[in-house]
Amino acid sequence: MAEIVAMKRSMEEGPVHASLSGGILTLTLANPPANALSIATMEALQGALDQARDDDAVRVVVLAAAGKVFCAGHDLKELTAHRADADRGRAFYEKTMRLCAGVMQSIVRLPKPVIAEVAGTATAAGCQLVASCDLAVATTEAMFATPGVNIGLFCSTPMVALSRNVSRKHAMEMLLTGEMIDATTAREFGLVNRVVPPEYLNQIVRKYAETIVSKSPLTLKIGKEAFYAQAEMGLSDAYDYAVKVMVENMMARDAEEGIKAFVEKRRPEWTGE
Amino acid sequence: MAEIVAMKRSMEEGPVHASLSGGILTLTLANPPANALSIATMEALQGALDQARDDDAVRVVVLAAAGKVFCAGHDLKELTAHRADADRGRAFYEKTMRLCAGVMQSIVRLPKPVIAEVAGTATAAGCQLVASCDLAVATTEAMFATPGVNIGLFCSTPMVALSRNVSRKHAMEMLLTGEMIDATTAREFGLVNRVVPPEYLNQIVRKYAETIVSKSPLTLKIGKEAFYAQAEMGLSDAYDYAVKVMVENMMARDAEEGIKAFVEKRRPEWTGE
Amino acid sequence: MAEIVAMKRSMEEGPVHASLSGGILTLTLANPPANALSIATMEALQGALDQARDDDAVRVVVLAAAGKVFCAGHDLKELTAHRADADRGRAFYEKTMRLCAGVMQSIVRLPKPVIAEVAGTATAAGCQLVASCDLAVATTEAMFATPGVNIGLFCSTPMVALSRNVSRKHAMEMLLTGEMIDATTAREFGLVNRVVPPEYLNQIVRKYAETIVSKSPLTLKIGKEAFYAQAEMGLSDAYDYAVKVMVENMMARDAEEGIKAFVEKRRPEWTGE
Repeated sequence: MAEIVAMKRSMEEGPVHASLSGGILTLTLANPPANALSIATMEALQGALDQARDDDAVRVVVLAAAGKVFCAGHDLKELTAHRADADRGRAFYEKTMRLCAGVMQSIVRLPKPVIAEVAGTATAAGCQLVASCDLAVATTEAMFATPGVNIGLFCSTPMVALSRNVSRKHAMEMLLTGEMIDATTAREFGLVNRVVPPEYLNQIVRKYAETIVSKSPLTLKIGKEAFYAQAEMGLSDAYDYAVKVMVENMMARDAEEGIKAFVEKRRPEWTGE
Repeated sequence: MAEIVAMKRSMEEGPVHASLSGGILTLTLANPPANALSIATMEALQGALDQARDDDAVRVVVLAAAGKVFCAGHDLKELTAHRADADRGRAFYEKTMRLCAGVMQSIVRLPKPVIAEVAGTATAAGCQLVASCDLAVATTEAMFATPGVNIGLFCSTPMVALSRNVSRKHAMEMLLTGEMIDATTAREFGLVNRVVPPEYLNQIVRKYAETIVSKSPLTLKIGKEAFYAQAEMGLSDAYDYAVKVMVENMMARDAEEGIKAFVEKRRPEWTGE
Repeated sequence: MAEIVAMKRSMEEGPVHASLSGGILTLTLANPPANALSIATMEALQGALDQARDDDAVRVVVLAAAGKVFCAGHDLKELTAHRADADRGRAFYEKTMRLCAGVMQSIVRLPKPVIAEVAGTATAAGCQLVASCDLAVATTEAMFATPGVNIGLFCSTPMVALSRNVSRKHAMEMLLTGEMIDATTAREFGLVNRVVPPEYLNQIVRKYAETIVSKSPLTLKIGKEAFYAQAEMGLSDAYDYAVKVMVENMMARDAEEGIKAFVEKRRPEWTGE
């Protein structure tokens, strides 16, 4: 496993840059100033997530953005241009929304933790990206909103992710007023885990990511999948399911090694099996 | 739309007063001192909500109360009187509880946002009213409780709304002890959005309501309905559903106008279509 | 009812001590230093909960622990020893996990409130115990973690309880990093209701418990059961169900007495019927 984590790679073309170092894959939205989720950007992001899923060298994904805006959501100019289509854009809007919902679910289904690193404003589907990640760290300057209501387009897909992060009245406040909340409010609401000064953002995210890289990738995969699966079940079904997951996890080599190492007071050596 | 919002009306009879101004319908519980949810009050409230639903001049509903008690819940004297019925009150209690559950669900199902304006004590079904609204603003003097357990009648219907607003241990603390929480605690729990000094309550609620009146009523209707619908679905179903909602929303005239106005940096003109 | 509450008993053998006083049954994990959930401890706890369920003298259960560790979760030495079994421990792990899930669900299903009294560290299945209780009070020195990820065994059953107490990003932070959170953070997350200085823990828990003992046991039973049942339903089903529960509750003698006493401004006399 050590060799895998030592691997380095980077790709700095297209609307999503990728950089792998120490098992941490940083995907950077690189379509400033808005980092809008155009078809091109969403396809690039989907492609990067698919690759990350299958690449053993990737242990954690960090989702970051270039510039002052983390992500402003859909590309309104692109959407508007398709009003001229014969179907007034319906087919294009369906393609856009499906692609977007697919990207968000790929983050949730990815068998590796995903951390949002938010230095700027995250609005609409950009706010949804943050909500869809497993963890989120923001700077004191980050802002969040679901402002679709201001332009006649309610943030209905963003709210799927948002309302699974924050309580109802908080979600409704954001959705009905469309107003910005600051990072501290976002932390109080449960949308982000930590708020840090801008100059420490990268360092804190790195620390989180390195902590997670030190765990067994098999264990993380088992646990993340089980987390979101059990969240949709009643208590009794959730326990029946989780018991099975725990037993299978116990039978895995990494659990045997991890428990043994703990009892012997030494660091475990993961094989991911 | 401008003419509709300019409309003014008021009705100051019966246990629920109604006053419409600038698209904001204020429904005031006017049965002090307890503003108890007697059959008469609940029927009046249900009637007012049904009218509000169908009246295009109503864009937002504010639920307020006259006096120091926002609402003390069911009318215990009315309930007790029916112990003398041949069935020991069973039919009457069923009628009462059904009516109450109907009012609460009418708030949730109303295609227009509902804001609770809470200046006093909201207990039992009164606390449920606050929990059922989309948003809630309270004064520093407001208090909340689900004290049914003190009189042998657990707040079982109130907890349906309460437990969809606040986390489990918080809900259980209120339900099992029956004790009052103050407005700040209610805000921390997620039961109310804002806590303001009594002298500013009306002004702050008005500001919230006016913000919402400035949005497309069609968009608010689409969004509010979708919010509560998707909240009951698993992630994958919620996304399938929300994608359809977004596409339909995109095809509406108000979204076309809203996005165009945004791109052209001007105020949108809503038609509600 | 008064005689029942006056009853005193105590049992100080085995891994779980039991002491009944004033209707409050205190179950103390007495297997220090780790108070690990070995098979013996879980069977003792399950037995004590089964007895508590059927014993009218028990009105509230307090779950406490001897020593500096509230509960460290499963007994890793016991688990490791069974690696030598013909099936590499599979049958034993299944037995362990089922027993554990059973104990946790017995706390939730117990028709009497259960309060966790946490003076020390609660980790893995120990953290799950706290999350499974209806209420939890912790000292400023208490700590919480779901550190299974550190030993290759994700806290998949603990997360069933944890994720029903705290929001997603908070749960994920605990599960993915395995790091300790202090009592104040646990309170902010919603895992515990109150944080108190160590010297007041017993007194505060007693006050909570006595408050609950003063209620009708029938009402508590009806309410607790309904709380967890409705939590798994959609809004409309939850209301249909809760309306039925309320009507049955109204027909009970304790509700009649409780409401009458309230109207007559006197203390109610519960019979539990």
